[in-house]
Amino acid sequence: MSELLLPRGFRAAALVAGIKPSGRTDLSGVVSETDCTWAFAGTRSTTAAASVGRNRELYAAGGAVRALLVNAGNANAATGARGAADNEEMAGAFGSVLNVAPGAVLTASTGIIGHLLPMDRVLGGIEHLPDELRQEAGHFAEAIMTTDTHPKTAEATLSSGARIVGTAKGSGMIHPDMATMFAFAFTDAQIDQPALREAFPGIVARTFNAVTVDGDTSTNDMAVVLAGGQAGAVSMPEFLEALEGVMRTLARQIAADGEGATKLLTVRVSGARSEPEALAAARTCCVSPLLKSAVHGNDPNWGRVIMAVGRSGAAVNIEAMTVSVQGHPVFAGGPLPYDAAAVSASMRADEVVFEVNLGAGPAYGEAWGCDLSAEYVSINADYTT
Amino acid sequence: MSELLLPRGFRAAALVAGIKPSGRTDLSGVVSETDCTWAFAGTRSTTAAASVGRNRELYAAGGAVRALLVNAGNANAATGARGAADNEEMAGAFGSVLNVAPGAVLTASTGIIGHLLPMDRVLGGIEHLPDELRQEAGHFAEAIMTTDTHPKTAEATLSSGARIVGTAKGSGMIHPDMATMFAFAFTDAQIDQPALREAFPGIVARTFNAVTVDGDTSTNDMAVVLAGGQAGAVSMPEFLEALEGVMRTLARQIAADGEGATKLLTVRVSGARSEPEALAAARTCCVSPLLKSAVHGNDPNWGRVIMAVGRSGAAVNIEAMTVSVQGHPVFAGGPLPYDAAAVSASMRADEVVFEVNLGAGPAYGEAWGCDLSAEYVSINADYTT
Repeated sequence: MSELLLPRGFRAAALVAGIKPSGRTDLSGVVSETDCTWAFAGTRSTTAAASVGRNRELYAAGGAVRALLVNAGNANAATGARGAADNEEMAGAFGSVLNVAPGAVLTASTGIIGHLLPMDRVLGGIEHLPDELRQEAGHFAEAIMTTDTHPKTAEATLSSGARIVGTAKGSGMIHPDMATMFAFAFTDAQIDQPALREAFPGIVARTFNAVTVDGDTSTNDMAVVLAGGQAGAVSMPEFLEALEGVMRTLARQIAADGEGATKLLTVRVSGARSEPEALAAARTCCVSPLLKSAVHGNDPNWGRVIMAVGRSGAAVNIEAMTVSVQGHPVFAGGPLPYDAAAVSASMRADEVVFEVNLGAGPAYGEAWGCDLSAEYVSINADYTT
Repeated sequence: MSELLLPRGFRAAALVAGIKPSGRTDLSGVVSETDCTWAFAGTRSTTAAASVGRNRELYAAGGAVRALLVNAGNANAATGARGAADNEEMAGAFGSVLNVAPGAVLTASTGIIGHLLPMDRVLGGIEHLPDELRQEAGHFAEAIMTTDTHPKTAEATLSSGARIVGTAKGSGMIHPDMATMFAFAFTDAQIDQPALREAFPGIVARTFNAVTVDGDTSTNDMAVVLAGGQAGAVSMPEFLEALEGVMRTLARQIAADGEGATKLLTVRVSGARSEPEALAAARTCCVSPLLKSAVHGNDPNWGRVIMAVGRSGAAVNIEAMTVSVQGHPVFAGGPLPYDAAAVSASMRADEVVFEVNLGAGPAYGEAWGCDLSAEYVSINADYTT
């Protein structure tokens, strides 16, 4: 992890500001030497955190970005006007020590909802962040974690030598609290802003939004790409494919590290009327507590796939529908005979894959989740205030 | 339970046909002496069972109903054309022994998905159902259970002396499998079909559809009201209010008996822009694994209410939003100070109530769920094929 370097022109810093009770690094930032073109996707939550709302406004305004400031341990959500002012003050303080405009600084917060930020510690930490700036990515990937069990990074190198480095956090909790997901990608490729903005929603839909641990949408989720340009122009199709690969790898890492997870659940849906319907069907399978429990117990209970697809809203031609579990066909318009013991044995794996053809059209979508274990309940319930 | 009588003109039968491996009663029927006006609501699943599809067609055709046939232990869902033919044959066989038209017989199936019905046992059982007809409701309420921990009934008596008797099942599993919900209500009131049909969707939305155990919509859910008329004409507003009360009581019983549940979770949402938005916000809270886990652990983690409401799609005016837990105010446009130990102690109860005002309009909605326990996972995972 410590050897992963950010792309040319980017440096990251992390330190212990004292926001997390654990004493781990909890304040971090990434700074670009040059103005970045960028893309952003934030949670659809109507109770979104101050940071999400502010980034969305900056994105609409269309200016360039120079820095990203992240705190873990406190979501600064449901904190009212005071929370919004605190968020603005954080951005301004980081801009000030970097000598860039506040509007060129994005913010992200993750942690417990409904508590005001300890602003003295946050502002004290920001003062020292510039001293910690390095090209390594690992300390940044660690500082954005809450109770993720490990940092999540991915990278790609384009034929021109330009690089994309992505980091993400998610599915861990603080205290325990909110399973916020962040995905940040940095590239030294020179990227046209309009083309990036046009492509990014689709990439997010197929990667970040195709991950589900428990169906609970955070108030703080966001995905950001910053393109600094020091590696020069690249082929846009090649860049977008590589970016999607990086985001997809991060998405799968988030699902596999879901709370209490013992295995990755992958659902591939083909034969859908449209890509959104394919993704909806795949996501509904991945979020179903019944299917997730069955995966945990190595139970090839494919009826739960039929149920989940049926409630997803995707069009289904059930006579032509097929389902397979770990490559074993179990349903084709009706139940198929199969060796239940053998299929169950094949589910004792790090990844369980269901393949579903809806028989209703040409579209494909894939989603990732994890099994549901008793550990999930204890992580989220066994907390006495 | 054994003293609860069906309304005048209705008799019910139940027997062991041998569909359930447990040897419990698994085939049951209700017969009316007179043609019934009726209302029906079935699952929105696009992979709905044969029984749901057939009842829906009969409802559209508009004929009267004389009987209802229910089997437990097998959902007859995802069973293709053969399953549809089996369902039709069941209805026809019950009609034949009762000497009523097949189109006057409704069917309902609950249990495992994707297995063909053992038709020899089903048809053998139907032959003997008429011998078992009695006015008691309890044996019917028991025979429709899968692994519900107890039968669910409710009743109301109108000022005219007309009665409504309701039975329901839900949240239990077979084998384990699908948490199908049924709600059946019978009345001897004489009810106008068009007025009943017009009012029923709203009643179902506020009762049956406001229950959630795990967010997984069954392929077999249905709610049916049969009105036989032997008690004569009644006040329609009084009848609808009583019917809603019966359905509401059944809905709460289903939630409280959710798989692995140790307590009932009630979420009351006011200040919504519309009733559907209020219900969506309340249901999203009740289905949230994070909130359900917090309720299990007596954790007054109201941030999870903010999160769930935020992802529900309901309009929110967060500055005017308020949240209380067991009557303790915890949020009013921002965090409120509260005694966390006292609130946690108040959550050690059979029912935990969250009250939420969205600050966005005049509408109200209420939903019921249950806490999420490790027991839920073991019920649904620890099944080795």
